[in-house]
Amino acid sequence: MNWKLKLAYDGTDFHGWQVQPGHPTIQGILADAIERIVGERVLPQGSGRTDAGVHALAQVASVHLNAPIPPANLHRALNRTLPGAIRVLSADHVRAEFHARHSVTAKTYEYRIFRGEICPPWLARYVFALNWPLQIEAMRDAAALVVGEHDFTSFAASDPDLATRREQAFHADAEDNDGPGSVRHIFASEFSVDGPEAGQTLVYRVRGSGFLHHMVRNLVGTFLDVGRGRLAPEDISAILAQRERSAAGATAPACGLFLEGVEY
Amino acid sequence: MNWKLKLAYDGTDFHGWQVQPGHPTIQGILADAIERIVGERVLPQGSGRTDAGVHALAQVASVHLNAPIPPANLHRALNRTLPGAIRVLSADHVRAEFHARHSVTAKTYEYRIFRGEICPPWLARYVFALNWPLQIEAMRDAAALVVGEHDFTSFAASDPDLATRREQAFHADAEDNDGPGSVRHIFASEFSVDGPEAGQTLVYRVRGSGFLHHMVRNLVGTFLDVGRGRLAPEDISAILAQRERSAAGATAPACGLFLEGVEY
Repeated sequence: MNWKLKLAYDGTDFHGWQVQPGHPTIQGILADAIERIVGERVLPQGSGRTDAGVHALAQVASVHLNAPIPPANLHRALNRTLPGAIRVLSADHVRAEFHARHSVTAKTYEYRIFRGEICPPWLARYVFALNWPLQIEAMRDAAALVVGEHDFTSFAASDPDLATRREQAFHADAEDNDGPGSVRHIFASEFSVDGPEAGQTLVYRVRGSGFLHHMVRNLVGTFLDVGRGRLAPEDISAILAQRERSAAGATAPACGLFLEGVEY
Repeated sequence: MNWKLKLAYDGTDFHGWQVQPGHPTIQGILADAIERIVGERVLPQGSGRTDAGVHALAQVASVHLNAPIPPANLHRALNRTLPGAIRVLSADHVRAEFHARHSVTAKTYEYRIFRGEICPPWLARYVFALNWPLQIEAMRDAAALVVGEHDFTSFAASDPDLATRREQAFHADAEDNDGPGSVRHIFASEFSVDGPEAGQTLVYRVRGSGFLHHMVRNLVGTFLDVGRGRLAPEDISAILAQRERSAAGATAPACGLFLEGVEY
């Protein structure tokens, strides 16, 4: 039987999604929990990797199991077995062809920036606390410029160990769901003032066909340069055209990033 | 110069307020930060100890410093030096006689119980997740019965190493601000449905002259027995009269407890 699992997690204390020997990861802990419950050693496939410290409001994973366990029982047993930092929101049977990564049609990420003077301790793990004046309107204009189909090489993690940019885009697929290449289609890209502690939290929400490694965090780091007046909004188009990681801004910290949802 | 510091903290990763060799505590980390900033080794006095895992929305500490540092500078420097899990909400000069523990007139604690089916990972550190049916009206009635002046021995942590109950109440002063004895005056004690994820969080709020060690958590554990129908609300009065820890319910977990504020 093929299963679709929807998961929420606090990524702070994990070394990202992907299983790594000797380190706690979401995928690894989920695999351990499944093995404890049904006695089968399988590796659930996520919609994409998330990096260390990145959270998920609704990550999706698929996994094939032989055990004839009813969905409600697997759901309950997983939440009883997993640590409180990982919750299964739903566990459902799906058709055999469903694959959490291959079947994706769109993904949405959000990035939370806390702008108040003192960031409450219970938000510190879930926001980038940044008490700087920001020109929000300029950031909105900049964000709008990445909507559409673009080559996002300038916003992809650069890895000096990898020889070619094509290889780099293929390997560095932490937030990548559609194989090699660095062209992605962004459907929506906007800033809003909401989230926890409304009025003090600036949220960047981006929905696209797929994302390169570090792409959302590099976009946010660059939009923050716009917000601080170091770049003009229209510079975003020039940075895209350069296809050089060095053209864009710094990578925003992992703690502010949430995988909000995955569409199929 | 005498200082009054107001602090918020996430107690999850600390061994409580009080300094302990070899363990991270709020008091110890605050003392280290002060030493780094002004070069004086002092021990800030809290309004009371909080146990491991207990949080504070507004703990108060007092400390004497020789350094002529302006309040705004000490405030900023502390928040720059302390980890994000501990925030200084304010730092002010106060008259020399002020003492964060001795000068207390009332303290308020709140205890948060998450009642939804799936507790979001970002709330798990800050609530007691308890997906049981509860008779809230019975719990409200029970909570009202502790208002007034009572001997709270039945709700104080019992410590088999201590010979007499009087000694026990003196030593077990984690949430105690008025010396020995086990009589405390409770000004308000009530349940409400609010807090984060409104509608799914049940909050117990209690304001009193002082609290014995584990008193709030033992009250909550006993009120939960009322909510589950194991005790009737009026049993609370009999439990108070018994002055035996064994008469009351279990100690609710630390993670749900917040020191909400201290009055002087």
